[in-house]
Amino acid sequence: LINVVDLDAIKGAGIRIGADPLGGASVDYWAAIADRWSLELTVVNPLVDATWRFMTLDHDGKIVTESTVICEYLEDVFPDANPLRPKDPYLVAEMRVWTKWVDEYFCWCVSTIGWHRMVGNLVKHLSDAEFEEMVARVPIPEQKVKWRRAREGFPQDLLDEEMRKIGVSVRRLEDRLSQHPYLVGDTFTLADVCNFAIANGMQFGFAELVNEKDTPGILAWLARINARPACQAMFANSKKENLGPRK
Amino acid sequence: LINVVDLDAIKGAGIRIGADPLGGASVDYWAAIADRWSLELTVVNPLVDATWRFMTLDHDGKIVTESTVICEYLEDVFPDANPLRPKDPYLVAEMRVWTKWVDEYFCWCVSTIGWHRMVGNLVKHLSDAEFEEMVARVPIPEQKVKWRRAREGFPQDLLDEEMRKIGVSVRRLEDRLSQHPYLVGDTFTLADVCNFAIANGMQFGFAELVNEKDTPGILAWLARINARPACQAMFANSKKENLGPRK
Repeated sequence: LINVVDLDAIKGAGIRIGADPLGGASVDYWAAIADRWSLELTVVNPLVDATWRFMTLDHDGKIVTESTVICEYLEDVFPDANPLRPKDPYLVAEMRVWTKWVDEYFCWCVSTIGWHRMVGNLVKHLSDAEFEEMVARVPIPEQKVKWRRAREGFPQDLLDEEMRKIGVSVRRLEDRLSQHPYLVGDTFTLADVCNFAIANGMQFGFAELVNEKDTPGILAWLARINARPACQAMFANSKKENLGPRK
Repeated sequence: LINVVDLDAIKGAGIRIGADPLGGASVDYWAAIADRWSLELTVVNPLVDATWRFMTLDHDGKIVTESTVICEYLEDVFPDANPLRPKDPYLVAEMRVWTKWVDEYFCWCVSTIGWHRMVGNLVKHLSDAEFEEMVARVPIPEQKVKWRRAREGFPQDLLDEEMRKIGVSVRRLEDRLSQHPYLVGDTFTLADVCNFAIANGMQFGFAELVNEKDTPGILAWLARINARPACQAMFANSKKENLGPRK
């Protein structure tokens, strides 16, 4: 840390710092940093929120939660700024079936395999006691279970079932995208936004399912969205979590 | 059947009948009825669809699925006919968080206990072979599992977990309804419609959780909705499934 931040200058300035890890897993680092560099730093929010609910939309003090709800809220509040919801109510209904499906089905099977493969690395360096202490701070029972499984490994029958659902999901997307450029009508909508958030990267992480031979429609759709200027700007400005494959 | 329908008259008329059980569990009765009364009857749709996806909205030939999506579609198409979606986008977002929560959380825990308590009765008269034949016709793997568990009984740890979630759900509703007449703003919205569909009846089936002492807010809200003319008309015209408690 001292190589990138002038901590002596911070300490010398005599300022008091309030650190909010926003529910992130880095919550434990702050006290250690404060100790080591004798900073007057208080962790104002010690809660680890593994549901990521801290990622809300704050619109002039109005807090909107849930990514799908946030997407539609932006359409409601800024209807003329680059609309991503169709005008035709029937196409809107089709769009909502797709975004709902992401939230209820597609997201969960891909996420569980992601937790299995990647998230275990975040906690493998902890001792059992440290891990239990961390889990005790997780407020949602379902997430406690998920952290435990990420550390211990998920049961094989659960992994098999989630992989089956991923196969169903990929076929559903390909059925549509082999015939059409986007999921609803002929234009880019929130249906594509919400599905892309899960599907992009599957050509690497699930290459046995998403590849040029089996799912040319999905690959062309991913490329089409990745080429959009807003998508390029988003990736250029986003940081990746320091995750890696399970070893 | 012969006590309520003049089957000789039907047979005598020489008509040909196409029976569509609409995915319902009654699919097997039709062939037996046709045999017994020598009717020229063809089951045109032999699929048992335990996901109830056959209950769609048909709007001049446009088929809309998913009850939450149907509700918003009706608002989009008939914006001035007794609107049940707020005008304020922020209240709409709050409404969607509630309807989404029904679909992703509240509905499932109550439904699983309902399957455990009630649905087993629908299949207990079947032999093992008949039951397997029925399950083989169910197209959705998740529903096959649900039918098997309804017949055999659900695992106790799963029932315990669903009851825990029902407790969480009831507290969430009561937290809001002890302070407000409806779930969003001060008016009846789709948030109430979708939650009422699950919560109404819990004062009987889950009286240990939903009762005058513990959840006066929920009880008052249920009574307020049950008193609405549209709600009264709906119940007056609806038939109940022939279900009953597990014995």
